[in-house]
Amino acid sequence: MSDPLPGGLSGPSFEQALLVAPFHSWLQLKVLTANKDGIELEFPWRDETISNPRTRTIHGGVLASLIDLAGMYAILAQTTLVSATADLHVDYLRPATNGPIRIRAHVVKLGRTVSVAATELLDDAGVMVATGRGSYLMRPAAQPAA
Amino acid sequence: MSDPLPGGLSGPSFEQALLVAPFHSWLQLKVLTANKDGIELEFPWRDETISNPRTRTIHGGVLASLIDLAGMYAILAQTTLVSATADLHVDYLRPATNGPIRIRAHVVKLGRTVSVAATELLDDAGVMVATGRGSYLMRPAAQPAA
Amino acid sequence: MSDPLPGGLSGPSFEQALLVAPFHSWLQLKVLTANKDGIELEFPWRDETISNPRTRTIHGGVLASLIDLAGMYAILAQTTLVSATADLHVDYLRPATNGPIRIRAHVVKLGRTVSVAATELLDDAGVMVATGRGSYLMRPAAQPAA
Amino acid sequence: MSDPLPGGLSGPSFEQALLVAPFHSWLQLKVLTANKDGIELEFPWRDETISNPRTRTIHGGVLASLIDLAGMYAILAQTTLVSATADLHVDYLRPATNGPIRIRAHVVKLGRTVSVAATELLDDAGVMVATGRGSYLMRPAAQPAA
Repeated sequence: MSDPLPGGLSGPSFEQALLVAPFHSWLQLKVLTANKDGIELEFPWRDETISNPRTRTIHGGVLASLIDLAGMYAILAQTTLVSATADLHVDYLRPATNGPIRIRAHVVKLGRTVSVAATELLDDAGVMVATGRGSYLMRPAAQPAA
Repeated sequence: MSDPLPGGLSGPSFEQALLVAPFHSWLQLKVLTANKDGIELEFPWRDETISNPRTRTIHGGVLASLIDLAGMYAILAQTTLVSATADLHVDYLRPATNGPIRIRAHVVKLGRTVSVAATELLDDAGVMVATGRGSYLMRPAAQPAA
Repeated sequence: MSDPLPGGLSGPSFEQALLVAPFHSWLQLKVLTANKDGIELEFPWRDETISNPRTRTIHGGVLASLIDLAGMYAILAQTTLVSATADLHVDYLRPATNGPIRIRAHVVKLGRTVSVAATELLDDAGVMVATGRGSYLMRPAAQPAA
Repeated sequence: MSDPLPGGLSGPSFEQALLVAPFHSWLQLKVLTANKDGIELEFPWRDETISNPRTRTIHGGVLASLIDLAGMYAILAQTTLVSATADLHVDYLRPATNGPIRIRAHVVKLGRTVSVAATELLDDAGVMVATGRGSYLMRPAAQPAA
């Protein structure tokens, strides 16, 4: 555990890594801040993500998506070794009826095989609409050449 | 606990209730079966749901969406009293790289205030790629008129 | 949603409600603080809760128990209407090998039918060893007499 | 992924590995069956595990403990490489008021770094009282000697 993990992404390379995913690009995500202390993203809104057309509430699966991806990218801001989501838990607190959604994620545990990150979602009035956490599989650090 | 819950939806009314959600319509979901023993849906695929463009793996948030919505509609096939997701848990087992995704959900517990449903996702080769469960808030049954 | 929920417990009545459970009494739990902002308990240690006798790590199920009960009592410090755990999620961060365990819980959402509370466990050195959240079923507020 | 994992435990060595944990021994767990298809254990009952002394319901944390440990030992029946619980999710379905509790667990995914197992708890009348799943960290397979 003595050798440090490779560093994470920041600035334009962080944003580029986020938007390389077609789903993230479709969600039109914006990076507000991204550093080792945590990240903040914004989902501006898309009408295709609505669940109930009468109340215009956003779909719970889209909120789950925001929590899943923000947790992974909070880890990526610390180290590039994160590879995939292992499992995800989401608590829905209140319906979110209007964008944009503010997304705040931070790393709870940075591990060699599994890391954990927690995410909060806030609506346009600053009210927390959902919270959740993901656990993420890590890739092994590169072995020194023989 | 003696009076029965109102019945669920089936056939065209089930499919109509599913596709009234713009997000479900965008996902182009198909109903394969829907009755009290469980439901089976299909997500044909959309390239916008891809996470890694090189491996063409589907985004974990989209898999979470399928688990969230299938659990709720498995309850809706038993009673119309289901109202919203309370919380969601997803286990990612293997990457899914090609559609269609087969979605199988059944009710674990039908309650007066909270119900629980479990969902499995299978890829085109029949391999299970994710499992999960949701807990869902129920609306009170209508009171008899005074 | 206009009428207030009945108040919670505090002081000796909170401690009495905690220790009325034989399992809590067996765990020899101590109340450090308990008010509307959250609660703090201590589990002093019992050798019967050890999982690995060589490393003397505490059993993950006992940590899950502490998270389950602390969340419920954080709600009880706000209102007596909490009735039972609906579901529980626990993340294990590091092994805990020596007591006492410090338990910090606060309410994330106070609802009419379901409430959510989050709990952190810290070891004797102040290191976080586990986090988790529970969702809890609420009893309906008493109806006014006719 | 070509070389096989080392095999799991069965028979007296499985039971011995289960009861080496002081907490498992305190719970007086019995092994009913244990093989690669899954395991079945029994918790006979202890009054110290009661939550509500009036209704004599078992504590939710004890049910969480049974789900946590059974999942790990279901993996141990397949390979000795399982090392620790990473995270745990429990759904409480009905109160359990009398022992014994029957515990059924099976492996959902056997992985190199993380495995997942699912567990069901049934009361003395065969009614399912709780379900849950755990994800478990795996130890690397031993390297061949140089």
